[in-house]
Amino acid sequence: MEEAPPQQERMMFAGMVGAAQVLGLASVVLTGVWMGHYRGGFAWDGSSYQFNVHPLCMVLGLVFLQGDAILVYRVFRNEAKRNVKILHGVIHLLALIVTVVGIVAVFDFHRAAKIPDMYSLHSWCGMLTVALFCTQWVMGLMFFLFPVASSWLRASYLPVHVFCGLVLVVMSIGSSLLGITEKLLFSIMSSYSTLPAEGVLANVLGLVLVLFGVILCYLITREEFRRPPNPEEESLSVHFKTLTEGGSPHSP
Amino acid sequence: MEEAPPQQERMMFAGMVGAAQVLGLASVVLTGVWMGHYRGGFAWDGSSYQFNVHPLCMVLGLVFLQGDAILVYRVFRNEAKRNVKILHGVIHLLALIVTVVGIVAVFDFHRAAKIPDMYSLHSWCGMLTVALFCTQWVMGLMFFLFPVASSWLRASYLPVHVFCGLVLVVMSIGSSLLGITEKLLFSIMSSYSTLPAEGVLANVLGLVLVLFGVILCYLITREEFRRPPNPEEESLSVHFKTLTEGGSPHSP
Repeated sequence: MEEAPPQQERMMFAGMVGAAQVLGLASVVLTGVWMGHYRGGFAWDGSSYQFNVHPLCMVLGLVFLQGDAILVYRVFRNEAKRNVKILHGVIHLLALIVTVVGIVAVFDFHRAAKIPDMYSLHSWCGMLTVALFCTQWVMGLMFFLFPVASSWLRASYLPVHVFCGLVLVVMSIGSSLLGITEKLLFSIMSSYSTLPAEGVLANVLGLVLVLFGVILCYLITREEFRRPPNPEEESLSVHFKTLTEGGSPHSP
Repeated sequence: MEEAPPQQERMMFAGMVGAAQVLGLASVVLTGVWMGHYRGGFAWDGSSYQFNVHPLCMVLGLVFLQGDAILVYRVFRNEAKRNVKILHGVIHLLALIVTVVGIVAVFDFHRAAKIPDMYSLHSWCGMLTVALFCTQWVMGLMFFLFPVASSWLRASYLPVHVFCGLVLVVMSIGSSLLGITEKLLFSIMSSYSTLPAEGVLANVLGLVLVLFGVILCYLITREEFRRPPNPEEESLSVHFKTLTEGGSPHSP
C-alpha cells in the first residue's frame, strides 16, 4: 500500500525479486534433474533423450527468461529507459531462441518415433502460447524498439503489451504444468499413485512454477513497484523515440 | 486507454462481459456434455458416474461462479457498494457450496474404487486452490462484510484481496486444465492421438476456459472499467463500514 514506509517497501521488493529468481532457477534445475537423472539425460538424435531437451528449454525460455525479461522494468526502474528496453528485448531474444530449440526437439522426436503431433491439450495450449509469444515479440519490436507506429498508437498499445506479456507468462506456466502431467502419465502412470521420488519431484516443480508466476504477477501489477515518471528521460532517449514522447502517464 | 471515447469504451466493456458470460456458460455446458454424453452421465453412488459430478461442479463453482462473483464489481459499478458487496458474497457462497459438492464427489468415488487420493499434480494444485479459496472467503467475510479489522488494515488488505481473487480464478482454470488432461489420459489414452470427438471436445473446453480467464483478468485489471469513486456512498453505507471509510482511493 502507499502507506508502507519506503524502506520496508524496498526490502519487500528486493525479497520478492530474490524469491522469484530462486524459484525461477529452481524450476530450471528441477526440470534438468528430472530429465537428466530420471529420464536418462539429453541427446540430439531423435530419441527420447532428444525429447528431454523440450521441457528444459520451455521452462528456461518461456518461463524463466520471459519472466525475467518482464522483471527488468521493475528491477532497473531507475536506469535509463532506453537501456532497460534493450535489455528487455535481448532477454526476450534469448527466450525466443531457447523456445525454438525446445519446439524443434519435440517435433524431431515425434517424427523419428512416428508419434502424431498436436493432438493433446498441452500441445494446443503450448503452441497457442508460442504463437502469441512470437506475435508479441514482433509487435514489441515494431512498436517500441524500432517504432513505426505513431506516438498515440504506441501509448495505446503499451497497456495491452504489458497485459499480454503477463498472460503469456501465465499461459507458459499453465502449458508447462500440462506437459508435466502428460509426461508423468506417459512414463510412470502405474506407479504415480504411490508417489515415487520422480512423481514428487515433478509435482514440486509444478508448484514452484505456480509460485514463480504468482510472485512475478504481484511484482508487475503493484503500483508502488512501477517505474517512476522521469521527465529527464525524454530528452535522454529522444533519439530512441521512447513511449514517454507520447505523453502517456504509464510506464511499462 | 483513457483517450478512447466513453461510448466506445462502454460498448467494448459490454461486449467483453457478454463474451465472458458466453464462454463461462459454454465451459459448464461442454463439461456437462463431456461427462453426461461421453462418460455415461451422473449419479451419487460411489461409481465413476459420481466422479463425473466432480469436473462439472469445479468448472461451475470455482471457475464460472467465482469469476462472475468478481465481475459484479465491474458490471454493477454504478450500484450502491453495499448491495454489490452482498451480491459478491452470495455468489461466492454458491461457488463454495458447489465446490464442496465437487470435492466430496471425487473423494467418495476414490474411496469406493480404492483409488489413492492426492498424489497427482492436478490434486495438489486443485487442493491448494480450494484451500486458498476458503481462506480468501473467510478473510473477505471478516474484513469486508462483517469488518472486525481497522479501516487502515482493511484498506491495506483490499488490493491483496483483489490480487488473490484473480490468482485464485487463474489457479482454478489451471487446475481444471490439469484435470482435463488427466481424465483424457486415464480414459482415452490409446485413441487420444487420433483426435476423437471426445478429445476435441475436451481440448476445446480447455481453450474456452483459458479465454474466459483472459477476458476476466482484462476486465478486472483495466483502470477505465473500475468502479468510479462516489463520495455519496460513504454516507449511504455508513452502517456497513465499507472500505471507503478508510479513505482508500481504491475500489475493489
